[in-house]
Amino acid sequence: MLFRRGLSLYAAVKSSGSTVKWINLEPIIRSNSSMASAINEKFGLPKRYGAGEKSVWVEYIQLAAEYKPAVNLGQGFPDYHAPEHVTKALSEIPTSDNPLLNQYTRGFGHPRLVQNLSKVYSPLVGREIDPFNEILVTSGAYEALFSAILGHVDEGDEVIVIEPFFDCYDYMIKSAGGIPKFIALQPKANGDNVTSADWVLDEKELASLFNSKTKMIILNTPHNPLGKAFTQKELELIADLCKKHNVLCLSDEVYEWMVYEPVKHIRIATFPGMWERTITIGSAGKTFSVTGWKTGWAYAHAPLMRNLQVVHQNCVYTCCTPVQEAVARSFEYELARINSPDCYFYSLARELLPKRDFLVKTLRENGFKPTLPEAGYFIIADWTNLTNKIDLSAEPDKYKDYKFTKKLAKEAGLLAIPPTAFYSEEHKHLGENFARFCFIKKDENLVLAEKLLKEWNAKKK
Amino acid sequence: MLFRRGLSLYAAVKSSGSTVKWINLEPIIRSNSSMASAINEKFGLPKRYGAGEKSVWVEYIQLAAEYKPAVNLGQGFPDYHAPEHVTKALSEIPTSDNPLLNQYTRGFGHPRLVQNLSKVYSPLVGREIDPFNEILVTSGAYEALFSAILGHVDEGDEVIVIEPFFDCYDYMIKSAGGIPKFIALQPKANGDNVTSADWVLDEKELASLFNSKTKMIILNTPHNPLGKAFTQKELELIADLCKKHNVLCLSDEVYEWMVYEPVKHIRIATFPGMWERTITIGSAGKTFSVTGWKTGWAYAHAPLMRNLQVVHQNCVYTCCTPVQEAVARSFEYELARINSPDCYFYSLARELLPKRDFLVKTLRENGFKPTLPEAGYFIIADWTNLTNKIDLSAEPDKYKDYKFTKKLAKEAGLLAIPPTAFYSEEHKHLGENFARFCFIKKDENLVLAEKLLKEWNAKKK
Ligand SMILES: Cc1ncc(COP(=O)(O)O)c(C=O)c1O
Ligand SMILES: Cc1ncc(COP(=O)(O)O)c(C=O)c1O
Repeated sequence: MLFRRGLSLYAAVKSSGSTVKWINLEPIIRSNSSMASAINEKFGLPKRYGAGEKSVWVEYIQLAAEYKPAVNLGQGFPDYHAPEHVTKALSEIPTSDNPLLNQYTRGFGHPRLVQNLSKVYSPLVGREIDPFNEILVTSGAYEALFSAILGHVDEGDEVIVIEPFFDCYDYMIKSAGGIPKFIALQPKANGDNVTSADWVLDEKELASLFNSKTKMIILNTPHNPLGKAFTQKELELIADLCKKHNVLCLSDEVYEWMVYEPVKHIRIATFPGMWERTITIGSAGKTFSVTGWKTGWAYAHAPLMRNLQVVHQNCVYTCCTPVQEAVARSFEYELARINSPDCYFYSLARELLPKRDFLVKTLRENGFKPTLPEAGYFIIADWTNLTNKIDLSAEPDKYKDYKFTKKLAKEAGLLAIPPTAFYSEEHKHLGENFARFCFIKKDENLVLAEKLLKEWNAKKK
Repeated sequence: MLFRRGLSLYAAVKSSGSTVKWINLEPIIRSNSSMASAINEKFGLPKRYGAGEKSVWVEYIQLAAEYKPAVNLGQGFPDYHAPEHVTKALSEIPTSDNPLLNQYTRGFGHPRLVQNLSKVYSPLVGREIDPFNEILVTSGAYEALFSAILGHVDEGDEVIVIEPFFDCYDYMIKSAGGIPKFIALQPKANGDNVTSADWVLDEKELASLFNSKTKMIILNTPHNPLGKAFTQKELELIADLCKKHNVLCLSDEVYEWMVYEPVKHIRIATFPGMWERTITIGSAGKTFSVTGWKTGWAYAHAPLMRNLQVVHQNCVYTCCTPVQEAVARSFEYELARINSPDCYFYSLARELLPKRDFLVKTLRENGFKPTLPEAGYFIIADWTNLTNKIDLSAEPDKYKDYKFTKKLAKEAGLLAIPPTAFYSEEHKHLGENFARFCFIKKDENLVLAEKLLKEWNAKKK
């Protein structure tokens, strides 16, 4: 079996019994003269991309494809149907009477979509957002992050990144010539009932990272993977530091609607003096449970938004028209019932709550110490109590969480994500004891996960 | 009326009679103290983007939205229905039994799509293209160009660009720190029956641009806006220079299927020794007449493709799943009838031919000197014979083609694109006498264009 890890090719070779050994084929391929000559030295990766970092997603999606684990709690997407009105909207558009809905639309965002985004967010930020100058539609929140970072970070600029972090932040900053400065959220409690609110920043350490070279801080609330919803007080601290040092805040809020009562999502753009220095990011994929639609947006004060427009115009230029039209119609549908509990913005969290509680309980009963998330659809769980049950020595990976999650995939048939992917090189040890589980999955798959974990645990006793 | 031009804001003010004057509001806004203070000097555009170039597309789409010209022959997209099997494919996917078709798929390309792309292109390039290592799916051909350029061009690298050129090439090269080196296609004939084959490169001039700093040449065949299909001999010259100087060829072939008999589209990747140094780009938007679907691809030798993967993974990461699935199914449909004249790959050009001929004739009869295109769906037409009929002095633009096309939009109700947007600063004079017209439009709109041009001409006599 061949297996690509990051950009390297591995072969899985059965060694003794059922254990599988992986051999890196790269050196073998390179030494093969005809292939080697084909790799033209002049055509290397430009310096700004470093060695072309491996992506945990590429690796673990490939892992899922190869091992076909019985339950995939890895990547963050639902394995069940999105709301019917949303999928129906996209179904109706390509074959509608209006052929222009299959053709290019406005580059900075389809008019009907930006108008609806303005209607959704204006009341939430307490000001009229100009749909044509303060909103940009992008190929997923991912490209919005790219446009915000590349549009502001210049050679030598420092960017403060809170760990653990959605892994692309780091690569994007570096490819812009920026210097990421990391600070980790750390659990202040360590008992059996840790919640995401227990993961906090050290205030002094945070303040010490701000200086005259700081261009931006990246905030992610609700937080992936911890499920932390930053509090009013925590956000005030960040806002005050941003204002004091004239720093931008890039606020990644793609999980804005998945917040569990009584916790509330708070937008830093609404803080006094912050509209002028905040770029907020959202995602239709996360909002409507259609991650494959890859439609995201940024909203901000017009002068900040211009820089994002330039980057977007330079890399993608315009996004998919029928999908933008469908997202616009989906927002219209929700806006029409915004005061009803049926509105998907609220019903989604209610639907997720029992899934969260079930998976937390399952993990606890099977030797993990999960952090109860107040938001989002991920659970970070400490697996060190299981250490003596499993032999990680056969796994070639550098970090224990990679070894553990691969072992879990192979032995228990359950896929989770290794969180060291969300830490800087120097802080990877902070993530090694954890695994990330996603719970936006069909109940039957969560029940199956429970069964698999129980059986695996029983075998190990 | 307010009007955004590039990134500046204009107000259209009625002056004497029906003539309209445009006032640039930018200096006024900037001098307004409260706005000025809001424009934070620290948050400027990073150096790699220069002044944030204006885009002709943003400007002319806005122009179309404001003036609502009766016929829009500006941007390159059909104003009629795409093939039914294509739009039907997308309609069926979001509400199908498989909810995963609305969720994230493989980042470098949805498996079913890359497999079909390999089936389409392998016979055309005469080698088995590895769907998983030699193809990348992108947010339109646009993002494929971005990934190819950013993935190879490093600080100080030279890139040869043939003029006129699709305008994003220039910005992308510069944002990568590269140095574009321009060479213009020039008409060797100047009579009444110029064809796109008459537009040629000076061989000596071309050879003189290659040197040890040259990393890449960008080829666009069939060519936008000239409609030129580069000949075997022309491509051989380029291929030989690439091999001699160890240079990459980025071949933008999005118009590959719109080629008029007896002319044939030739792929430079098939030339001896060129597979190792060519990145070829295609577009579902152009192939299936659904420009709004923004799904493109690059194919190339695996070592070259890795660099594109790194860039893609850093900016968009993964493309829209339902659209990729629909494009995959559309290719399957066409592959099943690839030997029939009904196959859309061939029927599209047959459908376009009478439209081309009608618009060429119309332009000729109304004082233009159009270049007959052998491929693509654009016509470049010299309008200088009309000079004495029109007063361009009221238009504030720098270049005559901008003045002319705006005049034409306002007076005749017909929108065309100014080709100086496709030339470097130093060569803009080469494009000033032309306007670009798109003919992938409903017959009734082409007939209306004829009527409008006739009426406009009559008024001027
Ligand atoms: C924190 C965070 N930001 C951004 C994204 C990307 O969102 P999209 O799929 O809209 O590009 C994700 C996806 O998992 C995420 O977790
Ligand atoms: C020469 C050329 N390349 C690339 C593109 C972009 O294609 P897509 O819409 O697939 O991004 C166009 C669109 O007009 C084009 O004319």
